[in-house]
Amino acid sequence: MNPGRDSRSVGLVTPQLARFEEPLLLACGRELSGYELVYETYGELNASRSNAVLVCHALSGHHHAAGYHSEADKKPGWWDECIGPGKPIDTNRFFVVSLNNLGGCHGSTGPRSINPATGRPWGPGFPPLRARDWVHSQARLADRLGIDCWAAVIGGSLGGMQAMRWALEYPGRVRHCVVIAAAMKLSAQNLAFNEVARQAILSDPNFAEGHYLERETTPAQGLALARMVGHITYLSDDAMANKFGRDLRTGTLDRGSESDVEFQVQSYLRYQGSQFSESFDANTYILMTRALDYFDLAREYDHDPVAAFRHSRCSFLVISFSTDWRFSPARSREIVDALIAADKPVTYTEIKADEGHDAFLMPIPRYLDVFRAYMKRVGDDH
Amino acid sequence: MNPGRDSRSVGLVTPQLARFEEPLLLACGRELSGYELVYETYGELNASRSNAVLVCHALSGHHHAAGYHSEADKKPGWWDECIGPGKPIDTNRFFVVSLNNLGGCHGSTGPRSINPATGRPWGPGFPPLRARDWVHSQARLADRLGIDCWAAVIGGSLGGMQAMRWALEYPGRVRHCVVIAAAMKLSAQNLAFNEVARQAILSDPNFAEGHYLERETTPAQGLALARMVGHITYLSDDAMANKFGRDLRTGTLDRGSESDVEFQVQSYLRYQGSQFSESFDANTYILMTRALDYFDLAREYDHDPVAAFRHSRCSFLVISFSTDWRFSPARSREIVDALIAADKPVTYTEIKADEGHDAFLMPIPRYLDVFRAYMKRVGDDH
Repeated sequence: MNPGRDSRSVGLVTPQLARFEEPLLLACGRELSGYELVYETYGELNASRSNAVLVCHALSGHHHAAGYHSEADKKPGWWDECIGPGKPIDTNRFFVVSLNNLGGCHGSTGPRSINPATGRPWGPGFPPLRARDWVHSQARLADRLGIDCWAAVIGGSLGGMQAMRWALEYPGRVRHCVVIAAAMKLSAQNLAFNEVARQAILSDPNFAEGHYLERETTPAQGLALARMVGHITYLSDDAMANKFGRDLRTGTLDRGSESDVEFQVQSYLRYQGSQFSESFDANTYILMTRALDYFDLAREYDHDPVAAFRHSRCSFLVISFSTDWRFSPARSREIVDALIAADKPVTYTEIKADEGHDAFLMPIPRYLDVFRAYMKRVGDDH
Repeated sequence: MNPGRDSRSVGLVTPQLARFEEPLLLACGRELSGYELVYETYGELNASRSNAVLVCHALSGHHHAAGYHSEADKKPGWWDECIGPGKPIDTNRFFVVSLNNLGGCHGSTGPRSINPATGRPWGPGFPPLRARDWVHSQARLADRLGIDCWAAVIGGSLGGMQAMRWALEYPGRVRHCVVIAAAMKLSAQNLAFNEVARQAILSDPNFAEGHYLERETTPAQGLALARMVGHITYLSDDAMANKFGRDLRTGTLDRGSESDVEFQVQSYLRYQGSQFSESFDANTYILMTRALDYFDLAREYDHDPVAAFRHSRCSFLVISFSTDWRFSPARSREIVDALIAADKPVTYTEIKADEGHDAFLMPIPRYLDVFRAYMKRVGDDH
């Protein structure tokens, strides 16, 4: 690619590191003595510091949401479809902050980091985290950047859950909350898939109860399996059918022998799994899926989402996708119903899309149009 | 239980073994020099030998479909809800044959059996099988029992696929074909889940490339994981929600610590997985899922299911369940549409049920009523 030539790209970006020395009290009751967050920014903070947007990533995401790290990069950041000049999150108007969550494995303090108390990697001893811990750690980053109030906090999937938590934890610091393909809490089926993914990792002998770094191994097979399970749930049945059908990679089925044949979908999944296992940390995966499992928007509000949302003071955009069966439109409608009952301003749209949960990353015209129109209002509203 | 006291149970049953010495040519081109099938029968064969019904089991099923093996048995056979005096497959009228498929691990010749050529267990060297191989092996059992023509061949899930294959391979030997919660072939998503299940087994070091019996190990963790994946797909999202919700086994989520808490659905899945891994053979699981993957009703009929069904000479009952997302009602309607286009008699019903794919094993009143009414016709029609 040539980032300089693409007028709709944010171009070359350089990650930055922020170190926080003040201890962070976590939801689990433990304290992190200090931590680092790696982040990127796109666009310029205006003089009134009123145009800042926080992008929250999903389960396996990271800070690199848009643009390129070098001229040689083949792929841009994970949400390049939505972030850039003229895109829904328009970097001509907004100052966009995207960070790697605490507990992550892409540069922020997490299980791969050194535990200062022991001088060895945290590994499985890293404290369990909740979405509110991310929100609190991010609030300090906002302080550091001089951002009193986000024009918008935006996220898809787990990122959407974080965005809602922001609206409840810091009602005075969020003007708009954009919640895409998310839910107020996981269903039993969601929990079940996460459990299978974790068991796949835990049962890989190379996981070594989480101490694989010290043993210089990596639970690649377990992590690959976990990803395969997750990946199936991100795609709709139709999307898989359209993408692969029952096509074979090679060979023929006629003779009924299987040594020389393999379905496309199977080799695709194996590839996805093995790619992921090379770039992700197993302890982080366990930590992130547990944060998802335990997320329950209204738990501290007597399990009443209406009571929970009454604390918010922002406007909401909620988006769901028709074939998303991981966080289905019904889950988004629950959010919308609670917001309406709490008398909060909310815009909702269900986008017709074949891509399942993954649709939130795709350039689906109506999705981008709705998102862009809403963000235009956000930009005008200050 | 006391089988003698339950007037709707077939009571105590004893499995029987049939040995076939004549070689069986398999779809893969290899030949099995001989084989054994373990089976049970319920009810009495009538003088005209016209009341025999074949029950085909699903992926992890076996021959023990109804009644009890001993007074101490706590649970009856896997389809006891549907087989017995006065039940849909009424043993007062029908002579029911239920067997363990070739390649199985409950007594029929399979990967755990001794390969006569080597004197050691077949293990991973057992030939790959197709549904047609099961049908051919079962036809010889029918010969042995003196059954020229089945009053009905009946199966759910993979068993339903076998029933359809019977109707095409031996059109003169099937009067009625009952296809429950099945499909003419697997979707890409089905293939993907089976792939994950197999990878879970293959990546367990105790699998030892299938030679675990000789090494006196067992890939219990891999098999448990495979079962967990499968199990999620057998249940609907709603069924899981009704059964478990987000209930905890112990403890509380308030503090956000996870050491003392666990969701019910997670411990349930782990229990299911570990139970299964003690009773099932890993090589058989791989063999059965591959047979499922490669099943494609119309492959040899130029991929035209109408042309395929034109070969059948029986009547069909097709049943699907509203929340079954493994083999959804849409898959059953494809079967029905092809049968109608082929001008074959077919009765179809979609049963409203919350239980997902597992519904075919459940005592859902309308399901049992429809099934019973059809089987009454089968019984009257000879």
